[in-house]
Amino acid sequence: MTEKYSYNPVTDDIVSELQSIVGEKYVIFGDAEKLEPFSHDEIPDRSYAHMPEVVVRPDGADEIAAIMKLANRANVPVTPRGAGSGLSGGAVPIHGGIVLLCDRMNRFLEIDTDNMMVVVEPGVVTADINEELEGTGLFYAGYPMSLETCYIGGNVAENAGGGKAVKYGVTSRYVLGIEMVTPTGEVVELGGKLVKDVTGYNMVQLMVGSEGTLGVFTKITLKLSPLPKACVDLLCLFETVEAAISTVPKIMTGQGIIPTAIEFMDKHCVQAACEYLNESLPYAQAGAMLLITVDGEDEQLVTRQYDAIGEQCLACGAIEVYVADNYTTSERIWKVRRNIAEAYGLISTHQANEDVVVPPAAISELVMGMQKLAGKYDIMFPAFGHAGDGNLHVRLVKNPDWSMEKWNEILPQAQKELYALVAGLGGLLSGEHGIGHKRKKAMPLFVSEGYLNMLRAVKRGLDPNNILNPGKIFDI
Amino acid sequence: MTEKYSYNPVTDDIVSELQSIVGEKYVIFGDAEKLEPFSHDEIPDRSYAHMPEVVVRPDGADEIAAIMKLANRANVPVTPRGAGSGLSGGAVPIHGGIVLLCDRMNRFLEIDTDNMMVVVEPGVVTADINEELEGTGLFYAGYPMSLETCYIGGNVAENAGGGKAVKYGVTSRYVLGIEMVTPTGEVVELGGKLVKDVTGYNMVQLMVGSEGTLGVFTKITLKLSPLPKACVDLLCLFETVEAAISTVPKIMTGQGIIPTAIEFMDKHCVQAACEYLNESLPYAQAGAMLLITVDGEDEQLVTRQYDAIGEQCLACGAIEVYVADNYTTSERIWKVRRNIAEAYGLISTHQANEDVVVPPAAISELVMGMQKLAGKYDIMFPAFGHAGDGNLHVRLVKNPDWSMEKWNEILPQAQKELYALVAGLGGLLSGEHGIGHKRKKAMPLFVSEGYLNMLRAVKRGLDPNNILNPGKIFDI
Repeated sequence: MTEKYSYNPVTDDIVSELQSIVGEKYVIFGDAEKLEPFSHDEIPDRSYAHMPEVVVRPDGADEIAAIMKLANRANVPVTPRGAGSGLSGGAVPIHGGIVLLCDRMNRFLEIDTDNMMVVVEPGVVTADINEELEGTGLFYAGYPMSLETCYIGGNVAENAGGGKAVKYGVTSRYVLGIEMVTPTGEVVELGGKLVKDVTGYNMVQLMVGSEGTLGVFTKITLKLSPLPKACVDLLCLFETVEAAISTVPKIMTGQGIIPTAIEFMDKHCVQAACEYLNESLPYAQAGAMLLITVDGEDEQLVTRQYDAIGEQCLACGAIEVYVADNYTTSERIWKVRRNIAEAYGLISTHQANEDVVVPPAAISELVMGMQKLAGKYDIMFPAFGHAGDGNLHVRLVKNPDWSMEKWNEILPQAQKELYALVAGLGGLLSGEHGIGHKRKKAMPLFVSEGYLNMLRAVKRGLDPNNILNPGKIFDI
Repeated sequence: MTEKYSYNPVTDDIVSELQSIVGEKYVIFGDAEKLEPFSHDEIPDRSYAHMPEVVVRPDGADEIAAIMKLANRANVPVTPRGAGSGLSGGAVPIHGGIVLLCDRMNRFLEIDTDNMMVVVEPGVVTADINEELEGTGLFYAGYPMSLETCYIGGNVAENAGGGKAVKYGVTSRYVLGIEMVTPTGEVVELGGKLVKDVTGYNMVQLMVGSEGTLGVFTKITLKLSPLPKACVDLLCLFETVEAAISTVPKIMTGQGIIPTAIEFMDKHCVQAACEYLNESLPYAQAGAMLLITVDGEDEQLVTRQYDAIGEQCLACGAIEVYVADNYTTSERIWKVRRNIAEAYGLISTHQANEDVVVPPAAISELVMGMQKLAGKYDIMFPAFGHAGDGNLHVRLVKNPDWSMEKWNEILPQAQKELYALVAGLGGLLSGEHGIGHKRKKAMPLFVSEGYLNMLRAVKRGLDPNNILNPGKIFDI
């Protein structure tokens, strides 16, 4: 630990103060078993974990403000935590200190159908939002793959993407207002129920994706969209990875249609997820699949669009195009897609999960380049993800036969070449999972020192004592 | 001038250095007549103007970096300038110093149809973008009302909105990457040709709307959209302002349709613009009009949608609904809408141009409240604007009969009540024109000191010597 990260331990006095802020029953301290779940997120490799010294569960901005003021005074780091479903270590308390859990803050504060907005607390589970909105004709268009467990607060902190970003964009498009506690313990409102606002800097958008390093969110105002009246999924099977992936940009530019989703899964991913779920998809032995969603306000239009897209896929060499035009079938396919990550987590905890993003038209070169790397290093290199966005979740999976020594020697080399491939295509390090501490070291391969200095300048300005989630994204 | 704004004058030595950076012919100095055009933007009231000491016209990031480094060394402020078409004083050099004009940087660097993106220099006139894209089937969806003269760099700096934001959003939705020069003279790249990116903070979005105070943009990567295949305008006439404005939220929520535009114009605005343009619209004596655009990828769908919207308007009391389904007629109507501001500029330079924004569903209460204020203070209070976004351009116009004394006494009172009305409805000070120096004093009526301190912290971090466009938005 360098000088820059020199903190005080959490003493009994500090614990007492925390207890008087939130109430004794909402403080977890001195019990390693109870603290352990808060030492990690969903990165399978537990070498990224780190124990907190205390966990607090506040309710409301005033309590959180008091906690931040105490933390600054006592020089103890604070790590905010949602569901802990992240994949880059954002919620891991790498310098110990306090984990600030927002699970009690799970209320729907307002459903405003006239304005087509909803105001929620950060601990609301993302999937619950659309459940709550049923019957209103409105929906929240964010669709992170972990929506059944993740919290909306975490989504905002990480600028979660997901499966439908091709048409609907990512979380940032929908965040209109944030009530937050600053790293120094002030309660501030940003934005509001406004679809346009230039009253000062774009602070709402600065907070989105700031990975819990610039503020703790206590209320979030989200924009809603009219529920599409028709929605269809296509499952397009291809013989080869190349055929599938090279079709992706053509779908977008060929027809002038923006589908809702274009997800790519290679054979290994499909098989792993199907086994995990005890499920089966047609022709799981096809080399690769595209899962394409089309939705819209009009059934006839959606039919015309998916027809056109299906034809495009066949023209690009698809073996077969299945149309899933009912919810049950669609859900089966999407469930397979959503569970690929977990399935691989069981195959091996020794894997490097990447989240690289390239210009959408370069997706084919990326995948072809990855296949070469897989051959060169003789490692499993399954790829799946949001091909329509140029964002793939690439995994380097340790061969079960290999020793850890061999893996620890080969992995950094393979990663370095992958990153060089991505950078060479004009890509960047993370499309949606964030940098956390997991990807911190790789940042200089993609961004300049000048850029990192800008991040540092913003961080230092808002968090002069470096108390809030220190050591994430970059080093001060 | 307070201590915080203590700068050195531009000396002959500094001018020499500037000349050696950009070339002698690209420096304007010592000639008040040549400098005068750069002392103001499009605020009619020239009390907001201020002369620069020197104007430079660089070409490229390296020259701009050298200028910023010189300015920091010499302690001379720098004000970036696009077309000078702003309405809040963002381009006005209120502390003298250097105006940095980007008019020479007007190239199209790349039109990337495969990625559906374009890379431009900041001095490209916004309307030229879609001209350049003709035939590609793609378009840039930003539509600021000043698009025929404004620069895209200025649009990004101000997060320009415009007439089609209801469906297409504002400028920020389309900015994917920025090459910029920091206030201290570093050239940094933010984002890229990526539709998703969480590699560090959301710095691209922080720059959008930062009003030239956080960086000078040298290259801008914009996302493009498929050109809609059908587009129709409706001109809906109402007897009263109330009938028109209360229809607006119902259009959005009633049908689950997101129109492309919903513009509101009261009778006075229509008459003023028609006279200015020597134009006439049907029933210009109607109390108020809604100009509604519907576009989409399918003619049948667009027809169904505008039919539904037309019916909705009639059900809400419209006297008449005109359908403009050809470009010529649409252009006539939109031209009237676009020229209201200029028309009023000629009626009187003594006016306060507001740009207030409220939650969309509160638009009716806003307009009704304004009408009461107009009666109370006996002033002209024309209102027009982006009603679908909750953003109205309200003008308080000096009665020609009044003395300046009377105007200067009444105006602040009327403004204060207007702001209280807006804040009470959950609104904010500016939806799209920006704060500049014009609205700086009013900020505390809408935002907390905590919020202003966050802005200051970000500004100080990135511009420690307060060189770049000082005194805009807030005081350091």
